[in-house]
Amino acid sequence: MDEMITGQIHEKSIPRAVIERLPRYFRYLGDLKDEGVERISSQDLSRLMKVTASQIRQDLNHFGGFGQQGYGYNVKLLHEEISKILGLNREHKLILVGAGNLGQALANYVTFEKRGFIIKGIFDIDPEKYGRLIRGIPIYRMEELGRFIEENETDIAVLAVPKSEAVAVAEELVGCGIKGIWNFAHTDLNVPEDIVVVNVHLYDSLLELSYKLEGKGQE
Amino acid sequence: MDEMITGQIHEKSIPRAVIERLPRYFRYLGDLKDEGVERISSQDLSRLMKVTASQIRQDLNHFGGFGQQGYGYNVKLLHEEISKILGLNREHKLILVGAGNLGQALANYVTFEKRGFIIKGIFDIDPEKYGRLIRGIPIYRMEELGRFIEENETDIAVLAVPKSEAVAVAEELVGCGIKGIWNFAHTDLNVPEDIVVVNVHLYDSLLELSYKLEGKGQE
Repeated sequence: MDEMITGQIHEKSIPRAVIERLPRYFRYLGDLKDEGVERISSQDLSRLMKVTASQIRQDLNHFGGFGQQGYGYNVKLLHEEISKILGLNREHKLILVGAGNLGQALANYVTFEKRGFIIKGIFDIDPEKYGRLIRGIPIYRMEELGRFIEENETDIAVLAVPKSEAVAVAEELVGCGIKGIWNFAHTDLNVPEDIVVVNVHLYDSLLELSYKLEGKGQE
Repeated sequence: MDEMITGQIHEKSIPRAVIERLPRYFRYLGDLKDEGVERISSQDLSRLMKVTASQIRQDLNHFGGFGQQGYGYNVKLLHEEISKILGLNREHKLILVGAGNLGQALANYVTFEKRGFIIKGIFDIDPEKYGRLIRGIPIYRMEELGRFIEENETDIAVLAVPKSEAVAVAEELVGCGIKGIWNFAHTDLNVPEDIVVVNVHLYDSLLELSYKLEGKGQE
């Protein structure tokens, strides 16, 4: 099975929508595994996840299938395979930039750590925060960023700084060799194309909710 | 101009992708307004937002247009109109359920409040938290939820409880008359179709980042 999920996967062009659905498959399969379910048909998974069975089959086909006719999907196996596809078979070293409210909340999220996303250092521009710890993780000066990344082989930076600083900090991170940015700042970043950015724009998401409620109110 | 954006908008079926892009238009127009820009062509907006000019024109046409040939878009006007479409011309009353790390961070987000999303009360099951304040907002017992919502005409609940409790709490919220849920719990909710749910699945988003980085590593 291992051979099916090597390099080739990423050379094929997988639709963005499929990639975005993959963590959700992973989450449902994890829940099923925890409940002791051994196998599941695409029909049952379809009812559970509220997507069509044919979409499930199509989506999972992008990654080599894993399903067997008349048997369905082996929950544990499929969960493991998706885990590898998602890069969860290795530890990820993270830094967090910005130790404000949201930064602190993210630093306290042990859930991520349990899954192998380990925050190794926190950076902030506020001198009063230097040397403090959040859940045992030290807060460093921004000036120490470059050296820290070099010494710790960090691959992901969590960006939780104000909008006004985000673009400049992102450039600095890229300059220091960061390849992936999880961006919580309320702005889009301007980084080279080979840098992976995933945005969590909380306010945009709240506005989507507000818009949809507005529609309801007028019905 | 007002007549163009009344009820009809929501009766037409606007593609989900367009709705999801609307807060981003709003954000960029707000930035332009703050910079003193009075008007912008779809071409310039296109370069800024990194979407095609034809997509911009198509998207905004869903809401009645607002653009004029040879003039472009009036930034202030378009910003105001989108603001109304997004329901920002009135105050929204919110409650926050779950006063853990993330809940506390969300309660401290003054940005939302400045835009008219006011958290009126916080609810938690931990008796030690009852009566405490976060940024002046009291923490109540879960048992007080029904009465509170009735007295405060709350329309949005921010759900920041652990996964294991989320589905039950969401049902309770809906039973109390909540119409919109901003869901931060790491699970999908099972609520009636007329309830608006917008999910912020942080871990799913982190996995998307991890997946895309994995792809890069193998290039």
